[in-house]
Amino acid sequence: MHTLWHQTPNAVWASAGSAEGETELNAFDNALLAAQVGNLNLIRVSSVLPQDATLLETAPQIVPGSLVPTVYSVQVGTRPGQTVAAAVGIGVGEGSHGMIYESHGASRREVEAAVRQMIDEGFARRGLRLKEVIVRSIEHKVERIGCAVAAVVLWWR
Amino acid sequence: MHTLWHQTPNAVWASAGSAEGETELNAFDNALLAAQVGNLNLIRVSSVLPQDATLLETAPQIVPGSLVPTVYSVQVGTRPGQTVAAAVGIGVGEGSHGMIYESHGASRREVEAAVRQMIDEGFARRGLRLKEVIVRSIEHKVERIGCAVAAVVLWWR
Amino acid sequence: MHTLWHQTPNAVWASAGSAEGETELNAFDNALLAAQVGNLNLIRVSSVLPQDATLLETAPQIVPGSLVPTVYSVQVGTRPGQTVAAAVGIGVGEGSHGMIYESHGASRREVEAAVRQMIDEGFARRGLRLKEVIVRSIEHKVERIGCAVAAVVLWWR
Repeated sequence: MHTLWHQTPNAVWASAGSAEGETELNAFDNALLAAQVGNLNLIRVSSVLPQDATLLETAPQIVPGSLVPTVYSVQVGTRPGQTVAAAVGIGVGEGSHGMIYESHGASRREVEAAVRQMIDEGFARRGLRLKEVIVRSIEHKVERIGCAVAAVVLWWR
Repeated sequence: MHTLWHQTPNAVWASAGSAEGETELNAFDNALLAAQVGNLNLIRVSSVLPQDATLLETAPQIVPGSLVPTVYSVQVGTRPGQTVAAAVGIGVGEGSHGMIYESHGASRREVEAAVRQMIDEGFARRGLRLKEVIVRSIEHKVERIGCAVAAVVLWWR
Repeated sequence: MHTLWHQTPNAVWASAGSAEGETELNAFDNALLAAQVGNLNLIRVSSVLPQDATLLETAPQIVPGSLVPTVYSVQVGTRPGQTVAAAVGIGVGEGSHGMIYESHGASRREVEAAVRQMIDEGFARRGLRLKEVIVRSIEHKVERIGCAVAAVVLWWR
């Protein structure tokens, strides 16, 4: 399907993945592949969930090389044995738009807690009611050059 | 109104804001809200003012979650008492396109001077004539975690 | 020509340039001008070559201020005498999409080798066959504030 850049996205898909690579950029690339978004031209956005957007259960079928607005979080590590982690969190609004936050760090526990806290503050500050929270996160133990990625793709259906 | 991504933007709106937050990302988010761009999916661009673009006086009405090309500048501070500042400057061309520059730093005076200097050099280098300069800037004294943001939204009318 | 953001780009153009500037942002801006992409609103993307995309030999004619998806690499230096370098590499797939990688560093030799290595790994990891590699790179000896830029514009024809 073609993108519909002139319209506000009305679907989102959240994912996470991790991998090793020969270089930092390859580790990032391989982690994107593991998260099933490695063949897309990701365009980084910050970070609002359009009202009534559908939460897709499976990866949308997108032609490789398409321009895809995405909220993502990356943590690269080059110290053998260290842990890298990344999380995205979607706060769905009750009768309103929602928010998407990302965190990267040294453990899944830490980054998950961070996105949950950010969702709470983002909703409180906007005076919005939180209906549901979806978190995707990943943790990876570095062998040589490792990367953890979490991503929310904004799309159309 | 829908965006018109397939066309060159023909309107711009400049703004600035600052805020505190529980985390750095929340401080950024809250500063974006203060600047009236916190419910948009900002996509960072560098940094040309299309010819004959209209300079909007008030914030365009945009559906939350829309994909919005934006030049922006961010400065986060985590040292109580420090000052954070951000500026954007629009150089309007006489009979040509113009340029948009951003700066972030430790005082409003510094960041405003920086964007003015960049506009001068950018126009000189291109051999363009400068018709008008618009600067939006903000300065914020950090309490715990503070953020200053200045932004130029590129839009359509 | 108008952009066609709702379609997957079907043409690419690779370029590189370098320049000095009064500030780091101006050096970047001037290097973009030297690379013939300085009057565009670049939107950074990562980094897939759509299948059957045409490799343009000359810069596409694009209205100043247009929103242009671009893979780019930047290296700024502020130490007189140091060398800055940037490269982009396009790996064209045999019967499939391809990949675009970027590298920045201290010499042309280093950054060219890096993008070639990343292309090899990116193709191997995806199980794709490499048909052709195109590299654009640049090296610049810093006088005061210098910048090297390499870019691949994704476009439509």
